[in-house]
Amino acid sequence: MMHESRLKSLLDDRESGAPATRIVRIMSERGALSAAQIARLTGLARSTVSMALAELRQSGIVVEVPGGEEAAKGVGRPATALTLNPEAGTCIGLHMSLDDIQLVVADVSHSVIAEQNIAMQRDYSPEEAAAATKAAVERTYRENGLSACGLLGVGVSVSAPVSPDGTVQRASIVPTWAGVNIRDAFEPVFGSPILADNESNCAAIAEMMWGAAIGCEDFVLFKIDLGVGGAIVSGGRVMTGIAGGAGEFGHLSLDPDGDLCRCGNRGCLELTASFNRPLEQLSRLYGRRMTMDDAIRLAEQGDVGARRLIEDTAAVAGRGLALVGTLINPPLIIIGGRMALAGDILLAPLVAAYEKHTLIKARDVAERLRTRITIGKFTENDKLLGAVGLVLRHHGRLD
Amino acid sequence: MMHESRLKSLLDDRESGAPATRIVRIMSERGALSAAQIARLTGLARSTVSMALAELRQSGIVVEVPGGEEAAKGVGRPATALTLNPEAGTCIGLHMSLDDIQLVVADVSHSVIAEQNIAMQRDYSPEEAAAATKAAVERTYRENGLSACGLLGVGVSVSAPVSPDGTVQRASIVPTWAGVNIRDAFEPVFGSPILADNESNCAAIAEMMWGAAIGCEDFVLFKIDLGVGGAIVSGGRVMTGIAGGAGEFGHLSLDPDGDLCRCGNRGCLELTASFNRPLEQLSRLYGRRMTMDDAIRLAEQGDVGARRLIEDTAAVAGRGLALVGTLINPPLIIIGGRMALAGDILLAPLVAAYEKHTLIKARDVAERLRTRITIGKFTENDKLLGAVGLVLRHHGRLD
Repeated sequence: MMHESRLKSLLDDRESGAPATRIVRIMSERGALSAAQIARLTGLARSTVSMALAELRQSGIVVEVPGGEEAAKGVGRPATALTLNPEAGTCIGLHMSLDDIQLVVADVSHSVIAEQNIAMQRDYSPEEAAAATKAAVERTYRENGLSACGLLGVGVSVSAPVSPDGTVQRASIVPTWAGVNIRDAFEPVFGSPILADNESNCAAIAEMMWGAAIGCEDFVLFKIDLGVGGAIVSGGRVMTGIAGGAGEFGHLSLDPDGDLCRCGNRGCLELTASFNRPLEQLSRLYGRRMTMDDAIRLAEQGDVGARRLIEDTAAVAGRGLALVGTLINPPLIIIGGRMALAGDILLAPLVAAYEKHTLIKARDVAERLRTRITIGKFTENDKLLGAVGLVLRHHGRLD
Repeated sequence: MMHESRLKSLLDDRESGAPATRIVRIMSERGALSAAQIARLTGLARSTVSMALAELRQSGIVVEVPGGEEAAKGVGRPATALTLNPEAGTCIGLHMSLDDIQLVVADVSHSVIAEQNIAMQRDYSPEEAAAATKAAVERTYRENGLSACGLLGVGVSVSAPVSPDGTVQRASIVPTWAGVNIRDAFEPVFGSPILADNESNCAAIAEMMWGAAIGCEDFVLFKIDLGVGGAIVSGGRVMTGIAGGAGEFGHLSLDPDGDLCRCGNRGCLELTASFNRPLEQLSRLYGRRMTMDDAIRLAEQGDVGARRLIEDTAAVAGRGLALVGTLINPPLIIIGGRMALAGDILLAPLVAAYEKHTLIKARDVAERLRTRITIGKFTENDKLLGAVGLVLRHHGRLD
């Protein structure tokens, strides 16, 4: 814990532009990097980087990591890389749910040190959320022997559009939070930087920093779950929209005479491409309540009904995703959400529908110009890891 | 013409980072700027900017412009501003059409010095295009007393997706050009930088540099004409997509069982939201061939049929645009294309349909979080001016 305040002061130094500051910032944003990558990303001379790294390693802020799993999988990590010392600081990630708050404490290498669910009364207020979170954080830090002065910030994932200033726009999960400014609610309690974003935007950040989009500055995240959502990343930046509404794929209104959606429009993609209705049908058929995990398990075991429901829903989702493709033509589309656990059972019919309905089809262009569609790395912890990512990116931003 | 080579060498200097270089680059990209704006945009100290500007003015590269029309309209131009001397360099903008090539020569303040249509045989080859353009350029330069050594580059607008390396992906107007690399075709003939992009992307650049999106880094351009197209600008960058297919709003496939579109999909927005079919109906009704200008004039004169056709088409287009809004939630949407000349006759029903079908509705959010929808500044010369803009932005890029 001895290096906490040194790292924090390096990250907080937005003026001097000293090499050590620029190096720890880029590491906090990108994770493990080689000296050559650091030189390229910071624009510093190789010799300057070498000198600064030697000093940072000597003072224990930066440590060497062996080429591990990531390098073996060839996802862009170098064989020998340097990373921030995991002991040098902590971040908190929060996700607000209907009747609980999920909390993780992670180190600067985004390893989860502790996680916890805080039970809440339904319709809990922002003040209650801040107080309960603060108490849980103090207890967790005490139990894990962590020092509060190493806290770099608190990232908050919200199940609603969040405007760039941190205000919740339309609250679907916690209806009473519409209009609440997350920063105003949490900053007085924590006294640390508070970063808030929509849960799908957080998930995109997790995939970009540590998942299926490492090294990719432009991609789309498409989440299929009990709802449908996602995020658009352009030039390394999650597009938020002026009111935090960008990437709301589930609310593409496809049929203006269709069923009413909770958003107030008709015929939204979410009504036919999420797994709510398929699970209702499956539950009726089997006479017991079915979860997405049940449906996936059944389909994997060869159950023709479960398989058909997943395939049909994937086809509808793929047609919606084709519209996103026609608009964005991204290099990479990552499929996330719990249904992504179905793997190829979901992916194959989804890709087929995408190719049928989108403008630029794989068969029409050279391989290097094709949109790649792949299952994401994170399907469960994505919101929370992304909330941690918000904090690290905040410090990493070289502005 | 005495300053041409000096400006060109300043623009070409990508290494030194000298204040004068950074200032002329930002001016070539942004047009007229105050000293304060230059300091902010370049990150240079005010005193450094003043000294460099004094020197640039003395050598005639930069001139002062009075606060003109733009400042009066309050679109972000300062009352007293500096701009590159229009005599200090020239750019060429080209647009490839079915049976002609449109050409403009503009100075660095993007004033058009000369324009010309070069008649071509249908299905003309890239080599023929390059040769004919070269001959026309030489004649135009000679006739206008311009020096070829002041040529900063050639921008080419293409009616098809263009991949970032300059390759035409799907050729709709000039079918034989699919797979042609525009740079390879024109560079040997001109020996100057060749920049190519889709015509809607060029139009977006024109609006961003000199039109309705001045000072706006994030916006959508939606073009309604005999086709429907557009562009998405994010963080000051036109999104191209991996194969140049981003922003193809006309090919959003809304009805998978609808009519076949020329793109190979069914039920594309362009089939119902462009003015092709309305003009056919109007022509049948009036027994003579009607153009968009005829339809607009009739509607303005109170013709109920023309007005109804424009309103209905605007409603369909607005529903399509609502999907773009749900995906991007942009601060600003600019309506372009020839039908934009209909002004409020088009805009009112279009905005009403947008508000009905998009996710984040104006009535639900604070005024500063609302998407603004407005008619663009350029409806005719947008492609050509944007092609000129490609050249200026190429030099302006501070990389």
